[in-house]
Amino acid sequence: MNTKLQDRVLTGDRTTGKLHLGHYVGSLKNRVEMQHQYDMFVLLADVQALTTHYEAPQEMGRHLRQIALDYLAVGLDPAKSTIFIQSLVPEIAELTVFYSMFVTVNSLRHNPTIKSEAAERGYTQLYYGFLGYPVSQAADITFCKATLVPVGDDQLPHIEQTRKIVRRFNELYAPVLVEPKAVVGEVPRLIGLDGKSKMSKSLGNAISLDATAKEVQEKLKVAVTDPARVRKSDPGHPDVCPVFSYHKAFAAESADEIAAGCRSAAIGCVECKQRVAKQINDLLDPMRERREAYKVHPERVDEILVAGTERARSIAKETMQEIRSAMGIAYRLGEACN
Amino acid sequence: MNTKLQDRVLTGDRTTGKLHLGHYVGSLKNRVEMQHQYDMFVLLADVQALTTHYEAPQEMGRHLRQIALDYLAVGLDPAKSTIFIQSLVPEIAELTVFYSMFVTVNSLRHNPTIKSEAAERGYTQLYYGFLGYPVSQAADITFCKATLVPVGDDQLPHIEQTRKIVRRFNELYAPVLVEPKAVVGEVPRLIGLDGKSKMSKSLGNAISLDATAKEVQEKLKVAVTDPARVRKSDPGHPDVCPVFSYHKAFAAESADEIAAGCRSAAIGCVECKQRVAKQINDLLDPMRERREAYKVHPERVDEILVAGTERARSIAKETMQEIRSAMGIAYRLGEACN
Repeated sequence: MNTKLQDRVLTGDRTTGKLHLGHYVGSLKNRVEMQHQYDMFVLLADVQALTTHYEAPQEMGRHLRQIALDYLAVGLDPAKSTIFIQSLVPEIAELTVFYSMFVTVNSLRHNPTIKSEAAERGYTQLYYGFLGYPVSQAADITFCKATLVPVGDDQLPHIEQTRKIVRRFNELYAPVLVEPKAVVGEVPRLIGLDGKSKMSKSLGNAISLDATAKEVQEKLKVAVTDPARVRKSDPGHPDVCPVFSYHKAFAAESADEIAAGCRSAAIGCVECKQRVAKQINDLLDPMRERREAYKVHPERVDEILVAGTERARSIAKETMQEIRSAMGIAYRLGEACN
Repeated sequence: MNTKLQDRVLTGDRTTGKLHLGHYVGSLKNRVEMQHQYDMFVLLADVQALTTHYEAPQEMGRHLRQIALDYLAVGLDPAKSTIFIQSLVPEIAELTVFYSMFVTVNSLRHNPTIKSEAAERGYTQLYYGFLGYPVSQAADITFCKATLVPVGDDQLPHIEQTRKIVRRFNELYAPVLVEPKAVVGEVPRLIGLDGKSKMSKSLGNAISLDATAKEVQEKLKVAVTDPARVRKSDPGHPDVCPVFSYHKAFAAESADEIAAGCRSAAIGCVECKQRVAKQINDLLDPMRERREAYKVHPERVDEILVAGTERARSIAKETMQEIRSAMGIAYRLGEACN
């Protein structure tokens, strides 16, 4: 583990389903690069997943192992990245409860991301846990004293909430917590195969990271393209074509050539799709190899999760001890009279 | 421990200061009796104390040991009652987080006790943890599958919330939780020495359980009596006299005689107060003896807390395992391939 590195990164995913190319472009690629420079903590957020999936957590164990396999396949290296399971670090729940004492209900109700997420999901009323998930995220980030949190714009209010909680805790008790910085990289959003929404498993417009080469080709075959280009001889408009956005995302070096060929009708949609399918498969091939190696030894995935969770817990226990001391609730039972 | 008894009782106190005669009359006396019939769990609610005292938890350790000493002094028997510390049972925090996924914010906002307590405390805005303390109470009650919870009327909405959470959990996942019953005894409220409000440490109108005999006499000397009785020769009105209410609470057998003597001006306030001071001291004397025995061996109090908390934790761990299995999040890492 890169324990000597100064900065610790906290990132992760809700365990609600396997990952796809949108996740790769939006975050996984970046994590694989960051793990060489930072002490990387990757959270399998199964408790946070309950905020939206409390009615059916029965598949959580399967999702969780699928995502772990996705992580290993894309190249997260368990020697560099601590992959761990949220529900097995009870200190996160304890911190959530402690922080909740000094976070106002109104500050959560006015959180713009909570509001828009509730609206998107059509929630007519808020659940207490859903309303408070930014507090739980503050616990995720602070138990391991992460200094950097890579996020998209929409997550900025949550990082701000964490920073407020850290400042308040340090001011109320003692300065033991670390204020994290948001790393707002350019987080590219990959458009879905339907050309309508961003790639999303639940919308059925995604190519999952465990897709076979054939599945990639077939999914692309039916992908939406520039609707104005009906015949091959029609000049295309790459800027409005979802498939061209895949060229930019996965084969940037040949994207100009593709764009020119599309505009001049020299390259047809069939060929264009075949070429990007090949590029995507070239990207996925080494992932498939790593995935296969783990698939024949699934116990290794579990071992990696156990080791990562143990490391996370040992850090969580240390932090919790500091937290208790700072608050004056480290009771040292039996020690008073020794 | 009375582990074979069918019913388990959960009761306890927020650790915000030592206990007084009002606590004795209102709950402690009843607990001492109940411990012979039930498996008694007594919670030192230090986390719940944070909902109102998060700004100054530094005295929590002292309060907690004072209350434990009060418990032992009044006659809670550690062989029959499991006295334990809330913050040292992290499963309670975990359950709180799990339950919070399916409790609506509105059901908490409309809880009449939360509303009136917030108003009493002059809260202009609610903290997230304060709003959710009924969820945390549900965790307190259910982690040990308590079947009986002795409460005052004002706590009934919280027990109803717990019952709702239990039913919802059992319906969503599997029937592992037990629906507790509220035991709404006649919970006498002892009036304070000022004759204005119920006895309360923060109002300075209380006789604490660790008061010396002399302190009891002196506190009673300045206690408010029937304001209409100015001279000894004035007939008194025992029904409006706070001191007479102490006769009823602590010396019921001679209360009629006192009332008659007061009304006929045969007994003056000085004598009346001396008599009730003696009765209270007779009650407190055996408590003083038990308290002294522990005071010279404070490590025994800590040992009792450690043993009680260990018992509570071992039960909490069992329940948590059942909870995880019911929800489908008992991942059995590494077991899949054994």
